[in-house]
Amino acid sequence: MSRPAPPPVCDLCNGAGGTLLWQNDCCRVVAVDEPGHPGFLRVVLNRHVREMSDLAETDRNRLMAVVFAVEAHVRRSLEPDKMNLASLGNLTPHLHWHVIPRWRDDRHFPGPVWSTAKHEAPVPGDRAAAAARMVDALPAALADLGA
Amino acid sequence: MSRPAPPPVCDLCNGAGGTLLWQNDCCRVVAVDEPGHPGFLRVVLNRHVREMSDLAETDRNRLMAVVFAVEAHVRRSLEPDKMNLASLGNLTPHLHWHVIPRWRDDRHFPGPVWSTAKHEAPVPGDRAAAAARMVDALPAALADLGA
Repeated sequence: MSRPAPPPVCDLCNGAGGTLLWQNDCCRVVAVDEPGHPGFLRVVLNRHVREMSDLAETDRNRLMAVVFAVEAHVRRSLEPDKMNLASLGNLTPHLHWHVIPRWRDDRHFPGPVWSTAKHEAPVPGDRAAAAARMVDALPAALADLGA
Repeated sequence: MSRPAPPPVCDLCNGAGGTLLWQNDCCRVVAVDEPGHPGFLRVVLNRHVREMSDLAETDRNRLMAVVFAVEAHVRRSLEPDKMNLASLGNLTPHLHWHVIPRWRDDRHFPGPVWSTAKHEAPVPGDRAAAAARMVDALPAALADLGA
């Protein structure tokens, strides 16, 4: 008799999804190593929920308050040319938001980071250093959101 | 004497940005023709504002309430495999949200719609017809949000 297929493993139920920087009872903020994109963060819902419209309004607002607080912190710290926000989850359907600072000279600009790279120019050293300081300062910046 | 450079023209200040389906005093919903992606909608802020963290909390919540109501309507109408939400604006830095139903057999899945297409399979006819009905029904679905 064949066994039933095991339930699919969710990477975001079974791991932080990056370097854990901050969390509250709703969600966490992680840093991810995306080559050419310093300061790339993700906000991950703690529970396994597929879509924003599956969340109650209160939970939706709490999650988005963290997304926008992270955006504000990244902007204050790095002064990028643009911010990109996205909730996709086609491979990992567990709610998570990409929060991505963009610069006119980055690998993909003006395309999304998922498009074909335009060039392979290295990240300026001072930008990488500023991104590392931004990451270090993130827990304090989000302290009001109930860590 | 040289004249100052004219201000850059913003496509979303000078046009709807797609087929106008619904609007209130905050934002509008437009349908866009993205080949291979039926039911692709955008929620466009009426004012020219660059980033979500430039908006007051009230305006941010009003805009996101429309984004999530649009997502809910698209899901109810089309039952896609996944929803994708994104605010990018690298080319047009005037706040607008992409609201994109995704199917396992669509051109780019599981990649974002901005990645290299995996194949060129045509959209099933019944899906295109359902997307057209979803668009027709959108104004009634958003009536509570103050059209």
